[in-house]
Amino acid sequence: MEGEPTLRLRVFDLNCWAIRYLSKRRQERVRLIGETLRREGFDLVLLQEVWSEQDYSDLRVKLAGCYPFSHYFRSGVIGSGLCVFSRFPILDTLLYQYSLNGYPYMLQHGDWFCGKSVGVSVGVTAPLLSLSLQLHAEYCREKDAYLPHRLVQAWELAQFIRHTSKAADVVLLGGDLNMHPEDAGVRLLRGWTGLRDAFAEATRFEGCKNGCTLVPDNCFAEKSELLPFPLGIRIDYILYKAISSFTVKCEELKTTTGPAPGMDIPFSDHEAVMATLHIQRQGQPVGATLGTADLALADVVTEARTEVGVGLRAARRQRYSSGRMAVLALLLLLLQAAAALGTLAGLGAEQPFPKLSFCLLAFLALGVLVLAAGLHLFHTMEVKILHGTEEQMWMALRALQERP
Amino acid sequence: MEGEPTLRLRVFDLNCWAIRYLSKRRQERVRLIGETLRREGFDLVLLQEVWSEQDYSDLRVKLAGCYPFSHYFRSGVIGSGLCVFSRFPILDTLLYQYSLNGYPYMLQHGDWFCGKSVGVSVGVTAPLLSLSLQLHAEYCREKDAYLPHRLVQAWELAQFIRHTSKAADVVLLGGDLNMHPEDAGVRLLRGWTGLRDAFAEATRFEGCKNGCTLVPDNCFAEKSELLPFPLGIRIDYILYKAISSFTVKCEELKTTTGPAPGMDIPFSDHEAVMATLHIQRQGQPVGATLGTADLALADVVTEARTEVGVGLRAARRQRYSSGRMAVLALLLLLLQAAAALGTLAGLGAEQPFPKLSFCLLAFLALGVLVLAAGLHLFHTMEVKILHGTEEQMWMALRALQERP
Repeated sequence: MEGEPTLRLRVFDLNCWAIRYLSKRRQERVRLIGETLRREGFDLVLLQEVWSEQDYSDLRVKLAGCYPFSHYFRSGVIGSGLCVFSRFPILDTLLYQYSLNGYPYMLQHGDWFCGKSVGVSVGVTAPLLSLSLQLHAEYCREKDAYLPHRLVQAWELAQFIRHTSKAADVVLLGGDLNMHPEDAGVRLLRGWTGLRDAFAEATRFEGCKNGCTLVPDNCFAEKSELLPFPLGIRIDYILYKAISSFTVKCEELKTTTGPAPGMDIPFSDHEAVMATLHIQRQGQPVGATLGTADLALADVVTEARTEVGVGLRAARRQRYSSGRMAVLALLLLLLQAAAALGTLAGLGAEQPFPKLSFCLLAFLALGVLVLAAGLHLFHTMEVKILHGTEEQMWMALRALQERP
Repeated sequence: MEGEPTLRLRVFDLNCWAIRYLSKRRQERVRLIGETLRREGFDLVLLQEVWSEQDYSDLRVKLAGCYPFSHYFRSGVIGSGLCVFSRFPILDTLLYQYSLNGYPYMLQHGDWFCGKSVGVSVGVTAPLLSLSLQLHAEYCREKDAYLPHRLVQAWELAQFIRHTSKAADVVLLGGDLNMHPEDAGVRLLRGWTGLRDAFAEATRFEGCKNGCTLVPDNCFAEKSELLPFPLGIRIDYILYKAISSFTVKCEELKTTTGPAPGMDIPFSDHEAVMATLHIQRQGQPVGATLGTADLALADVVTEARTEVGVGLRAARRQRYSSGRMAVLALLLLLLQAAAALGTLAGLGAEQPFPKLSFCLLAFLALGVLVLAAGLHLFHTMEVKILHGTEEQMWMALRALQERP
């Protein structure tokens, strides 16, 4: 066991904030990221928010020498923004899109259009299952309307990892979870999968205090969002676990701290996270020593289930009110049709309304009908998914309680 | 090896055609299905098209004695229609919704609203990974507009099975693939996963000729669809494979043949498929003898990739034409706004149009704009997914060719 060779794996993770037309100094930053990646020679690079396929292509051309294998994950209207560059061959890829991802009518938040997903690439190192991902953003911590959606995503992600990782030796997840370390979603994900947090496990750490990746010192960061957190927040993570007869240790974790060396700008509005992992084969299989079945886990599943239940009730209310609105609009339209027919048949003495207002009203009712019916359909789907997740969590709780 | 006990597993699969308000004699048939399942005492029951949750609840109550474990998979607007009843505990469930599933504006086909999915339940028998599923329907075999979507679904299903099944001992899939046995999607699914067809492998077979499950003799079947196939078609399958140190043999396969015993109606417009499987532990792991990497597999992946490419080009054309339509509608609206502003500012001598037609035209343009923009977004997503699938298939082909 002692004589077994150790694989040293250097991993880079960054939310690149590369939105075409919207992100400041995007092209310059993407160039800078490419140059740094080429110079540093990591083994595995997990990037998020590379929304433009052109940026990915540019990076791929630039990095072809040191990262000959790469993949860009496509989904949603805009794309998933996820890509992976690897020094080792990528054998297979898989994209899992979360069932819920915000609301299409919240145009200013835009998460729905991105098709937030988790991209899985299976590499030959180990075999290593590496996941790059991003969850729904948190826009307002005090009144977080997206919390149930984010919890559904965390749950689906955890379930997905449990089901896909069984034949892997090592699972490695890098991404922007959009959650603080102590949030229910992070606890749920870690507890339900047994993933370990590189920041907590690292022998050496270097970088922003508390491992924060969204810091006020970053010139691109939204200062107002960080007012309650003067030190910043940690929302980008590298998580890992060894599955079969392997052990993984995090030797070193680093974050960038503002401007790139020799430059006046940082890579992104997030700081990058870099981990050095040591992977070693063990004499015998480790077995299920991760202990996912404890009371703390039952507690966090219960907590998440409660939040999903809150979301479910809200979604049911919205489904009801949009359905009612659609019915009212339909009734108005029918009433107008009856009035119009009546006038045509010569039943009414005079046309009661001027033609123009009559038409305007009909179009308005039609518009309301289409919109309300669309909303009703959307919230019906939302209800189904929240209800399904709540049931899955209940099944998980029952399984936890039945264990000796 | 010879002394190991054999597990005999009896599986029932049926597309129930239980659409509320639309399916003929639905309640009667669901009652009949419930009674038969209770009497026959299968080990595992995989049902599709149970669209009404009430029907599921009724079945669950009726079957609680002999099938104490069950799950209903929720997705889409209407639901996935999938459910599973089991004599053995269900440890975990997972729902994977295909990325593409028809078009929301094809209301008469309705597949989009169902959220076609594959429901996975992990049971303790073996451990057994059982999948219940339905793919997009084929509405016109000669001019099958949904073929690329169905191929994407078959590919995603195959990838999903490959990634989730690695820790299982036996994978069992039952469902309505909506494809003939020789179709590219079935060959792709079987080739890429190594799943075996219970009909082809069964020692004994009893039922409709060629194992057909959509037969003209069924009084609910759409006769016109079956005109080119006087014997019927086989679109419901039970597929299986053993993964680790197990072997699976299909001892017997049966289909129902029209009316249920002692009744004047069949269970559904599809015939049910029933398999008796023998699962036995082997002395040593079987290893990768399934030989998925052969020339035939490369051929079928190439064929599927070509079809997906055809779909991709069609989706790009539709994206372009809907985008152009949206731009034209926007231009018309802007023109009208300019004219209206001109009239208001007193620039034009007289108002050139009557108010009513002017308003009607504006509303029409607005309606076209909203619809065309929605279509443009939808086809943009479709393009992304088809493109992503095409790339995954290309990666698979490269991997196949690089194998010795």
